Amino acid sequence: MTIENRELTFQTKGDCDIIDITSPVAKNIEASRVNNGTITLFVTGSTAGLTTIEYESGLLGDFRDMWNRVVPQDIPYEHNKAWGDGNGYSHMRASLLGPSLTIPFTSKRLALGTWQQIVFVDFDNRPRSRKIILQIMGE
Amino acid sequence: MTIENRELTFQTKGDCDIIDITSPVAKNIEASRVNNGTITLFVTGSTAGLTTIEYESGLLGDFRDMWNRVVPQDIPYEHNKAWGDGNGYSHMRASLLGPSLTIPFTSKRLALGTWQQIVFVDFDNRPRSRKIILQIMGE
Amino acid sequence: MTIENRELTFQTKGDCDIIDITSPVAKNIEASRVNNGTITLFVTGSTAGLTTIEYESGLLGDFRDMWNRVVPQDIPYEHNKAWGDGNGYSHMRASLLGPSLTIPFTSKRLALGTWQQIVFVDFDNRPRSRKIILQIMGE
Repeated sequence: MTIENRELTFQTKGDCDIIDITSPVAKNIEASRVNNGTITLFVTGSTAGLTTIEYESGLLGDFRDMWNRVVPQDIPYEHNKAWGDGNGYSHMRASLLGPSLTIPFTSKRLALGTWQQIVFVDFDNRPRSRKIILQIMGE
Repeated sequence: MTIENRELTFQTKGDCDIIDITSPVAKNIEASRVNNGTITLFVTGSTAGLTTIEYESGLLGDFRDMWNRVVPQDIPYEHNKAWGDGNGYSHMRASLLGPSLTIPFTSKRLALGTWQQIVFVDFDNRPRSRKIILQIMGE
Repeated sequence: MTIENRELTFQTKGDCDIIDITSPVAKNIEASRVNNGTITLFVTGSTAGLTTIEYESGLLGDFRDMWNRVVPQDIPYEHNKAWGDGNGYSHMRASLLGPSLTIPFTSKRLALGTWQQIVFVDFDNRPRSRKIILQIMGE
């Protein structure tokens, strides 16, 4: 049984930037000593989240539209009144989507569907430098 | 420490079909060589999700009503314009609910409440053959 | 490789009570025999959930407001008609937020951002005694 702690770092544009991280996640599994196990992805930060989606431009637009309807930017947030940074909606979206994702893999291959990609969603209202923790556990 | 990769396959009716998978999940733990550990459930596909709910008919109706309000079917989706399959809402619901669920168990017993069942939710707009990956890790 | 099963028990006020459990979670990792690994948190029960948030009073109010908009209390729920306990909205919120959270840690330190706390959210409409399962797995 082996545990490896790795991380991904990258730049985002903010404003519901949706970044396909499937390939770097798969490469980290490939480079690890683990063939069968689980990878846990975790966002360090409170204005971004993780999920899976079919990464095609129509759905990426639909995803942004959904967030604009479900958790709008331009309504009053107590956070904005107190802190003046205008990203109350970013915090809410991140808490609702969630910071963690756990994906099994076998023989180094992630258990994803053909049209299913892993995405990091930056809900913040400005470009950010981001870090995701990847923990690979298995044998 | 042991890892076992198993899977569940089943047919759904689509259209927010909510399937109680608690019993087959428990049976897979029972049949495994692991007594204490974690089971990670993962949906392969981008139009279905996993969560827990008290599986009674009132709440199942309420759950469908909630999705109809939060992510409606009959609004414009860019995905539908591009692909014509009409399931843009299914993709959005699946990405919001999330594809993975991790549940601890001890002495083969899942850490569920008495009125808490594991459900697979098929958001697609047609019947589907589905597969869930079950990864059991522990000792 | 070691697995430890622990639990947190506490009282809540219900009604979207948001409880910061970062410190007791960290203390359980500190007290365990595991230095590097994953902690899986799981809510036993179907009217509460887990996520992360920046724990400041503005955002806590915003979080409650978000739930009042996205899954309102005062609309008809079939569950309420059948059972009369008035907490149909609590079940819906819990199923949408999700019962599990998996967080990596290294050298006993959780992979959280500086302004990111782990919270238990009690969506029920009355005070409750609650239990969270903590499973620590690693080396």
